[in-house]
Amino acid sequence: MRLGVLGGGQLGRMLALAGYPLGLTFRFFDTVSDACAGQVGDLVTGSFDDPQAVSDFAEGLDVITYEWENVPVDAVRLLAERVPVFPPPEALEVAQDRLAEKHFFQQLGIPTPAFEAIDSLDALQGAVQRLGLPAVLKTRREGYDGKGQRIIRAAGEIEPGWEDLGNRGPLILEQFVSFEREVSIIAARGRDGDCAFYPLVQNTHTSGILSRSVAPAPDVRNGLQRTAEDYGRSVVERLAYAGVLAIEFFVSEGRLLANELAPRVHNSGHWTIEGAETSQFENHVRAVAGLPLGSTAMRGQAAVLNLIGATPDGSDVLAIPNAHLHLYGKSPRPGRKLGHVTVRSDGAGEVEAAVEQVQALIRAQGGSSL
Amino acid sequence: MRLGVLGGGQLGRMLALAGYPLGLTFRFFDTVSDACAGQVGDLVTGSFDDPQAVSDFAEGLDVITYEWENVPVDAVRLLAERVPVFPPPEALEVAQDRLAEKHFFQQLGIPTPAFEAIDSLDALQGAVQRLGLPAVLKTRREGYDGKGQRIIRAAGEIEPGWEDLGNRGPLILEQFVSFEREVSIIAARGRDGDCAFYPLVQNTHTSGILSRSVAPAPDVRNGLQRTAEDYGRSVVERLAYAGVLAIEFFVSEGRLLANELAPRVHNSGHWTIEGAETSQFENHVRAVAGLPLGSTAMRGQAAVLNLIGATPDGSDVLAIPNAHLHLYGKSPRPGRKLGHVTVRSDGAGEVEAAVEQVQALIRAQGGSSL
Repeated sequence: MRLGVLGGGQLGRMLALAGYPLGLTFRFFDTVSDACAGQVGDLVTGSFDDPQAVSDFAEGLDVITYEWENVPVDAVRLLAERVPVFPPPEALEVAQDRLAEKHFFQQLGIPTPAFEAIDSLDALQGAVQRLGLPAVLKTRREGYDGKGQRIIRAAGEIEPGWEDLGNRGPLILEQFVSFEREVSIIAARGRDGDCAFYPLVQNTHTSGILSRSVAPAPDVRNGLQRTAEDYGRSVVERLAYAGVLAIEFFVSEGRLLANELAPRVHNSGHWTIEGAETSQFENHVRAVAGLPLGSTAMRGQAAVLNLIGATPDGSDVLAIPNAHLHLYGKSPRPGRKLGHVTVRSDGAGEVEAAVEQVQALIRAQGGSSL
Repeated sequence: MRLGVLGGGQLGRMLALAGYPLGLTFRFFDTVSDACAGQVGDLVTGSFDDPQAVSDFAEGLDVITYEWENVPVDAVRLLAERVPVFPPPEALEVAQDRLAEKHFFQQLGIPTPAFEAIDSLDALQGAVQRLGLPAVLKTRREGYDGKGQRIIRAAGEIEPGWEDLGNRGPLILEQFVSFEREVSIIAARGRDGDCAFYPLVQNTHTSGILSRSVAPAPDVRNGLQRTAEDYGRSVVERLAYAGVLAIEFFVSEGRLLANELAPRVHNSGHWTIEGAETSQFENHVRAVAGLPLGSTAMRGQAAVLNLIGATPDGSDVLAIPNAHLHLYGKSPRPGRKLGHVTVRSDGAGEVEAAVEQVQALIRAQGGSSL
């Protein structure tokens, strides 16, 4: 079976590495010819609005998936007329627009921070009155890793905020949630409707980029995991989903508030390669290929540190007991995710000790400001 | 860093899948253009005695390794003048000749079944007198998976044995060992001399082909593991080895008798992908690339069933809890290793139950005579 993947970044690369043992082959589509997944599978390069390039990509594929949620939905719908596409394009539509996403959560009874659609400075001023400050002004589309958003802390920052983002398409204003922590749940749903969930993971962002995930999230009450799974199940069922999907939550006063969803494998699930019986990548591939899901049970404890902008020496990382290195084959650039290190162990204490060592290496080469 | 791998079979394929996360890239050399590693990396096709093809392969490589022990040693020595080759060519030389291999074990004080070199019918008759019957007549070179050997059980089988194998190069006669079981140890040695060992694994052969491995080997006395590690260490140190090496033993009257060594990753180590902190494939890649070795500690219990000649339906395999499917992307042919299934669990009982289920699937499609 030949899988097509829209997007040729590290997520696609890790999908292929997980899928080859299942006897699958992979073809990627990306706009740039040095997309790092091209090192491990066929790569077709072109624009998503170039019918010939897209058609060359689709030729002979059995199923198509995506590893990047900003793939143009129209292009995906056209492809879906020719080759089955999973997850369904509706999931992309929801995820690409922060307003649609919040409405979607609302419809399902999943709490979110309060929000309002913003299409003018007047609307922004009114929304600030109702939601209070601080609040976060975000572009509705194409924001990721903290891009396209700014915090408004005082009335004097309203106009500058509008000037900064108002010309970048429709906006959304969200109440600033003073949260205890950020967690995420990764759900998998098979084409047969079977659902599975990984344990809640606790995430730390640095400058808007995910820098660290700890699995399982420490001190999670049983109820919180169950609630997150209920939310996850209602999302994937409403979307008639197949594949892996992540939902990021704030934990505020002990409650989960949905922040955003990603209709794909997710950075906060990288620990599953070593730390779960079946990785998120394998489960995504299994799901979209119509195969049964694998066990999401944890094996020990795990933590992931992202390598952002620069990478420490591989030898130094690999000399740390239980440290597993994942480099994406990308050239260094400030703020770019170049790899990650997973620490896995049967004991949480060992994980913490190794994380300290990895973090010292990352600090020493000045790559990420963890 | 770009690694070259001589041989493009499933072992090379799994080396690449383990090495990509370390940021390495792979180029394979094989005599056939549909070698299955070519699905996951660059493949150069040609004859080992074609200087142009070998030179094209070597161009720009940082280090060369091999995944097949019948690579011509002369070709490897030529390559080693240009690019570092690990494991060292001497290891190939020893492994390619059953007589040299036995002498090598002898020199290191590692017990083996009694043996004699055979170059004539007269020599064979004399050797049978001294070693007794039954005995096993083998070609010294190019035997694998039970090929190039026959058991001589009675005096009347001496001449037919000679007629069958006498024209296939020099032979060796080995005492037939009535063993309790077959086990193997996988050793890893880094370029810095650091050694690590996986637990002894118990192997079952069917028609001369490895069909099943159980890790760890059940009821192994501590002393047996230590002895196997001592033997492994003396082998890799004598060879100034870098990489992974396997030694197969008979266990006879509680003692280890070395049967053969493989200077490469080994079928009896496939369980390490899921069942060990670091897989044999990753440790081989780390070793030849000059990186530190990873932990060889087990994670739970594991068993591997080989898929020989045919493969069961992937969905059926993946529906079995804790079953991990590995298909090699090869077309079916009787006796051909097409894939394997690893079962991993924290409890031995769960492994056994799942192994039964996998075996039932294998029997049902008539692939392997397990």
